[in-house]
Amino acid sequence: MSTLQLSFPRLRARLDELAEIGSFAPGGVARLALTDADRDGRDLVVTWMRDLGLRIDIDGVGNIVGTWPPDRHDPPVLTGSHIDSVATGGIYDGALGVLAGLEVIETVAGAGVVTRHPLAVGVFTDEEGSRFAPDMLGSLVYVGGLALEAALDTEAVDGAVLGDELSRIGYAGSSPCPAVAPRAFVELHVEQGPVLEAEGVDIGIVTGVQGISWTELTITGQSNHAGTTPMSHRHDAGYAASAIAFGVRALAEEFGPPMVATVGRVDLHPNLVNVVAARAVLTVDLRHTDDDVLASAEARLAALCAELRDAEGVTIATRSLARFAPVQFDDTVIDLVERVAREQGCTTRRMPSGAGHDAQMLARVCPAGMVFVPSVGGVSHNPAEHTDDAQLAAGADVLLRVMLELAEVQ
Amino acid sequence: MSTLQLSFPRLRARLDELAEIGSFAPGGVARLALTDADRDGRDLVVTWMRDLGLRIDIDGVGNIVGTWPPDRHDPPVLTGSHIDSVATGGIYDGALGVLAGLEVIETVAGAGVVTRHPLAVGVFTDEEGSRFAPDMLGSLVYVGGLALEAALDTEAVDGAVLGDELSRIGYAGSSPCPAVAPRAFVELHVEQGPVLEAEGVDIGIVTGVQGISWTELTITGQSNHAGTTPMSHRHDAGYAASAIAFGVRALAEEFGPPMVATVGRVDLHPNLVNVVAARAVLTVDLRHTDDDVLASAEARLAALCAELRDAEGVTIATRSLARFAPVQFDDTVIDLVERVAREQGCTTRRMPSGAGHDAQMLARVCPAGMVFVPSVGGVSHNPAEHTDDAQLAAGADVLLRVMLELAEVQ
Repeated sequence: MSTLQLSFPRLRARLDELAEIGSFAPGGVARLALTDADRDGRDLVVTWMRDLGLRIDIDGVGNIVGTWPPDRHDPPVLTGSHIDSVATGGIYDGALGVLAGLEVIETVAGAGVVTRHPLAVGVFTDEEGSRFAPDMLGSLVYVGGLALEAALDTEAVDGAVLGDELSRIGYAGSSPCPAVAPRAFVELHVEQGPVLEAEGVDIGIVTGVQGISWTELTITGQSNHAGTTPMSHRHDAGYAASAIAFGVRALAEEFGPPMVATVGRVDLHPNLVNVVAARAVLTVDLRHTDDDVLASAEARLAALCAELRDAEGVTIATRSLARFAPVQFDDTVIDLVERVAREQGCTTRRMPSGAGHDAQMLARVCPAGMVFVPSVGGVSHNPAEHTDDAQLAAGADVLLRVMLELAEVQ
Repeated sequence: MSTLQLSFPRLRARLDELAEIGSFAPGGVARLALTDADRDGRDLVVTWMRDLGLRIDIDGVGNIVGTWPPDRHDPPVLTGSHIDSVATGGIYDGALGVLAGLEVIETVAGAGVVTRHPLAVGVFTDEEGSRFAPDMLGSLVYVGGLALEAALDTEAVDGAVLGDELSRIGYAGSSPCPAVAPRAFVELHVEQGPVLEAEGVDIGIVTGVQGISWTELTITGQSNHAGTTPMSHRHDAGYAASAIAFGVRALAEEFGPPMVATVGRVDLHPNLVNVVAARAVLTVDLRHTDDDVLASAEARLAALCAELRDAEGVTIATRSLARFAPVQFDDTVIDLVERVAREQGCTTRRMPSGAGHDAQMLARVCPAGMVFVPSVGGVSHNPAEHTDDAQLAAGADVLLRVMLELAEVQ
């Protein structure tokens, strides 16, 4: 078993080929979920799965699972991730986990190695949540955390409906969801943060995922002339939005690490230089590893909104786009990933994930864990996202050996 | 002369007919400069001018002037305003001044009254500046304050070029600009602020226009993952934008009335819930009647930007979209408007204008003044903008009698 060697050049070539789909800059991809670019990416991955002889199952929300051997229907040791991206994403976020999983299976199958449990690799729909909230929507449906019908009715930020887009790109499959729980799940992913690189560590042993709270706020004030309306007469939705974004930063600083808080989206209406804004829509992204602290931050946000409502004479409607409690991964998987990485000569560090991942959804139904590789400069969701080839190869190698142990070579 | 009576029903009918062009809600119009809706509005006004037998001159930036008698080429007593609107404007802002001017000329011409100086009514291009900055662009070119070539090269917020749009809608005329200075200019306009209504005054005697400073700020940070990037590692253009908008409000409150300050436009990129914004573009609109105070506010804004540059690790590029010093109207015109209004039995109040107007540009080349009528609730740049019929009629009547005195009935 330990003599099996995956082919990094083959993995590298697949990463590069997939990176061309939706490419908008060197190292940058725009493959928002269920767009034409996402479809083209899916088509490419499915072609590779088919070429390897995997059985391909596509479920009602478009999750794709390739299984080896193809005739095995008992619970597999599953790996995988996603190939959708944010609007200005990098080429490794998600794609690494999918294509390393494919490489693991090709390596095992090509060597004629037989495992007690089947191996499978999944491509989960809309992990980023940039187009359809919540994020990790596909894996959430996969584990039964969200009804398929509700998922299909989800409206995109661009007004499209998820079910319509899924049919349009030809990925409304018939495999049941929720799916049968896998035997175990392990996901390889780039860290997307600065910790591993800063500490010179090869492999992150992910212990869990911080809790996530996404809220959309719609502020309604009164549009008015910017030159003739005294400050005291204003009901300025744009000002209220800025006060919330400003307050969210202050809140994050007050709570301190590991709290992170972001206002990434702001839309004003009518959005003109000389008109007091009548309406503002903004999103607040709050994350923390401790659910109680996260709830406190949410309460503080609500208090800030109430204060602004009164002070500015605006209304503020709130809508939860996503709310996931912190997740703790399975101890046996964590221990296994750590042992395997060290056996391969890698330095390791246990750490929570700052980002949400499909693994946190799979953790609801089976033992799950994750392998992190460093992100240069911690840069992520950005064309400048980068991980060195040697680090990518080390991560894929750890994934291979963890899957072989979980699947039990016979 | 004092027996001349204008027809308010005729003026009312024209206001209602023009209001249908670009109508998007009861009382609301969207006639952004040089759009199809603006063209349709121009076509309608030009048809009315032609029906009245006026000589129609259209200059290189699309300003339309109708003169009576048509064969008179000596400097006229000019009135007028604009028919472009903000994206969510009301039906009186600008249109009242144009159509009341038309009504004045129809009344005089229809009665066979002959004046020593010709009468003229102008429709000035892009007064609002919502699509092409600066505002009052047409009248600025009319008086020689901006070269025609520079004006034609102006780029719209939607990327269109002014000269192209002007040709597209058929209003690139051949009359020279700058034009010959009129003998005098007087403009009727809704106040767009709450003062006249709050004090129960019929007619505002406008003494001048406050200074205006429009700045566009482009903030460049670094896009990054909202979950994995510690607060201390961020270069968040969205946060910097909110801090500026928040600071601009604080600045206005600190300076106190009559300072007004507005951030009406904010665009983030990539504008997604889970991505720290890489870029933000926002506008800051500062206004004050005292040019020194306005300059102090601009300096404070620059200091705030410098502070954020250092604290957040972003760059901030600034571009002036408009900068007009406060304007003082001509004393003889101010006195005349006040006397005439009182003779008509109106209550009056001298006041500066909070908004910019074409009259402030005409004031550079001839004696100029303005007549204000109340705006209910001070609401403006909003479909809810309203002025009662009796107040509209009173304003038009004052305009008629002021123009007759300026033009000297023979």
